[in-house]
Amino acid sequence: MSLIQHSLKRVFKNVAVTAAACFALVATGATAADKVYRLKLAETWGPNFPVFGDATKNMAAMAEKMSNGRLQIRIDSANKHKAPLGVFDMVKSGQYDMGHSGSYYWKGKVPNTLYFTSMPFGMTPAEQYAWFYHGGGMELMEQVYSPHNLMSFPGGNTDIQMGGWFQKEINSVEDLKGLKMRIPGFAGEILAELGAKPTNIAPGELYTSLERRTIDALEWVGPSLDLRMGFHKIAPYYYTGWHEPGSELQFLVNKRTWNKLPEDLQEILRVAMRTAAYDMYTQATHESGKNWVSMKTEYPDVQVKDFPPSVMAALQEANDRLLAKHAEKDALAKEIQKSQSDYLQQVRSWTDISHRAYLNSQAKK
Amino acid sequence: MSLIQHSLKRVFKNVAVTAAACFALVATGATAADKVYRLKLAETWGPNFPVFGDATKNMAAMAEKMSNGRLQIRIDSANKHKAPLGVFDMVKSGQYDMGHSGSYYWKGKVPNTLYFTSMPFGMTPAEQYAWFYHGGGMELMEQVYSPHNLMSFPGGNTDIQMGGWFQKEINSVEDLKGLKMRIPGFAGEILAELGAKPTNIAPGELYTSLERRTIDALEWVGPSLDLRMGFHKIAPYYYTGWHEPGSELQFLVNKRTWNKLPEDLQEILRVAMRTAAYDMYTQATHESGKNWVSMKTEYPDVQVKDFPPSVMAALQEANDRLLAKHAEKDALAKEIQKSQSDYLQQVRSWTDISHRAYLNSQAKK
Repeated sequence: MSLIQHSLKRVFKNVAVTAAACFALVATGATAADKVYRLKLAETWGPNFPVFGDATKNMAAMAEKMSNGRLQIRIDSANKHKAPLGVFDMVKSGQYDMGHSGSYYWKGKVPNTLYFTSMPFGMTPAEQYAWFYHGGGMELMEQVYSPHNLMSFPGGNTDIQMGGWFQKEINSVEDLKGLKMRIPGFAGEILAELGAKPTNIAPGELYTSLERRTIDALEWVGPSLDLRMGFHKIAPYYYTGWHEPGSELQFLVNKRTWNKLPEDLQEILRVAMRTAAYDMYTQATHESGKNWVSMKTEYPDVQVKDFPPSVMAALQEANDRLLAKHAEKDALAKEIQKSQSDYLQQVRSWTDISHRAYLNSQAKK
Repeated sequence: MSLIQHSLKRVFKNVAVTAAACFALVATGATAADKVYRLKLAETWGPNFPVFGDATKNMAAMAEKMSNGRLQIRIDSANKHKAPLGVFDMVKSGQYDMGHSGSYYWKGKVPNTLYFTSMPFGMTPAEQYAWFYHGGGMELMEQVYSPHNLMSFPGGNTDIQMGGWFQKEINSVEDLKGLKMRIPGFAGEILAELGAKPTNIAPGELYTSLERRTIDALEWVGPSLDLRMGFHKIAPYYYTGWHEPGSELQFLVNKRTWNKLPEDLQEILRVAMRTAAYDMYTQATHESGKNWVSMKTEYPDVQVKDFPPSVMAALQEANDRLLAKHAEKDALAKEIQKSQSDYLQQVRSWTDISHRAYLNSQAKK
């Protein structure tokens, strides 16, 4: 063996010793505590989607920092997984560990998922958080998702959604008849009951459709996201909301993934999701105010309108009729509806003497 | 350089890399990562104080679970440390690592702490969170607290506080003259400007004072905490709020303690405090609704009243006059006031077309 070979061997031995010592330290020092868990999250949104996409990034960053790198969450946007509305199935099967989406997107698959985003004439964000965490909402959501190997958590609130952009004023229920409006989901069903022609149109075609009068109206979110769509340039009326008074997104977690995590990482993930949801509501509030002021400055003639009471009453009546149909067919649907309407009645008595009274007193000035 | 020298160099480089990686693992995995940090928190409240005390327990439990026991926070209530209003000083000096209290309690000591709880005619909880986290509020709070070796964080919101319990109706500014009312702090100063006689009375004596007419009126919090005080049994009028539209408690942290914590525990503490604050707001919403329904069931004759516009205008005018005095004396006070009033104007434009419009549309039914 040459000197050089010998040196090399010694060096390698040192490497081995060092490595062994290193592994020993790791093993004695923190066994499970050093294992890195890498989770994959599929979000329904495109890459860097404003507000919604910030919520997933915020959640993942908190989880990684709090776990000192032991919990790493890779976020795949829709351009990567190509299945924006396949998130439920991909997390259920374990193809993804987590998802970020909206519960009501799955109503065609599991009807009772409808109730965990926002219901027409329902709770505001603060009221709905109180229902989720103190009024039985989380437990009911678990009943709906658990049979699908899934856990669902609040995933961020857009605040009260606006009623939408309209080319013409709505002065009576008659004005809704034949109205072509982009409004998907349950709210679309309600409008159809009143003779409107609801339709769904891909986001990229919304502006042109409204501009060329292919549709007469559309709803999107509210100032937080509507500004970049430019609707205020082509529609004079912006109606206040009724159909989604506190739209809450959702985090989905595959139960097998969850059960594999040590307890401290489960708590880190649980808290990171809850905080990211609250944080998104705070961000949506900020973006809404900021963008609304920008819109009004650029287009001061945009008119904010409330639907007249007769229209609201008709919408509410159609809503109640449709909900009753769901409740007739499904005992759990009935239970969830009752939980929500009982809770709303209780909490709104407070919101009325606090928020409504205060906001009205300040507006009178 | 020979091939062998080159190989050796590469080997040594690998050793160095391995060793570096190893030390990194040792540092995170076994040494720092296993050290237990025990912090002491002094809260202004008595033991098991409802809602407020739940926020500190919730925060400490999250921190302990997420850190797998490495961050332990002992909570001392006022009965232990005997200095409910000494929390600022005890955390500043390092006698305690943390505190849970209210920023405006320190206005006699550091006048600009006034601005970080809730201001009369100011922001609602959601608006104020947006200001803290997106409108410059956290940075201004840091400017106020940093010279005192302290960090301050939002610590839980009681929601809009009610205007108080009154024995007689308030129909004009004239009715405020000579009115003996328990209302501490800045709101008390405002009432004094209008001829009322504000006073502070210990919580344990409030019921008797109002019952025996030693005072004509009092404000406490709102249904979430008023129910157990029993005021609804002895005062017929419950006025809606103006003076604290979103009272946010605070967590205080001694900066030296903070700097001793490793980065992962800093993030765990930061997130646990932020989440406990949001959670408390959710709990306060729930308790308010639940308790208000109980009160109304037991005492259906309690009358909810708004102060008439003339009284609100006079209160607002006195408020503006007092604030201007503060701003004249202190450049930072002026900057904070401007930040808050600019932000309020922006965000309220949104709250009005969302929350106010929606709540009014639902109340009309």
